[in-house]
Amino acid sequence: MTDDSVAVELDFGDDELIPAIAQDVETNEILMLAYVSPDALEETQNTGLAHYYSRSRDELWQKGGSSGHRQHVEEIHVDCDGDALLYRVEQEGGACHTGYESCFYRTLDGETVGEKIFDPNEVYE
Amino acid sequence: MTDDSVAVELDFGDDELIPAIAQDVETNEILMLAYVSPDALEETQNTGLAHYYSRSRDELWQKGGSSGHRQHVEEIHVDCDGDALLYRVEQEGGACHTGYESCFYRTLDGETVGEKIFDPNEVYE
Repeated sequence: MTDDSVAVELDFGDDELIPAIAQDVETNEILMLAYVSPDALEETQNTGLAHYYSRSRDELWQKGGSSGHRQHVEEIHVDCDGDALLYRVEQEGGACHTGYESCFYRTLDGETVGEKIFDPNEVYE
Repeated sequence: MTDDSVAVELDFGDDELIPAIAQDVETNEILMLAYVSPDALEETQNTGLAHYYSRSRDELWQKGGSSGHRQHVEEIHVDCDGDALLYRVEQEGGACHTGYESCFYRTLDGETVGEKIFDPNEVYE
């Protein structure tokens, strides 16, 4: 039996990472998917700002740390198996480094369906 | 330069799996996160029904194959890096095997925030 009053146990798996979906708390739009380490999750909870773990750079990072496009985390949900997270966020600026509001701005066929809201050349120097 | 008229190249990584988020196309609610192999993606595209790859059972599976709670995939989006997918779906029944509409029915603190819409004992025999 699961006791609903206790914190949910997470399964970080062999690589100590768990995928986290960032969703706009107002529009429910999905903004991005990134990975979270135990430290990244703790930093997110301590600061209220979304932190992730970069697999390519092998480091903890704060979303918006360089661009200013921070994510204020209002709620964190966890899935039934405890191996995926949902960050419900208020997004400053756009979530995608390409300038789009969401990283999921294309269909699989290459059609652009998302909205470009900033010029990455002006944000990332 | 990316040519928007060609299909997006996907990065399935070393394990040949890519995470896919299933989102309700009407409410934008996030229903579940699961993994997709190249074969699972092809089956999804061929049938219009969401297919995934189970890491624990090591096999391709069709969502709703046993429960009847199928996902009709209306659009597939891909993220900027080509290493995450978004299935925009019409969900029959509930997405979660626990009876909830979404697998993300709890907060990290264990509070239930989702809606239970079926009795799993009646669906899974």
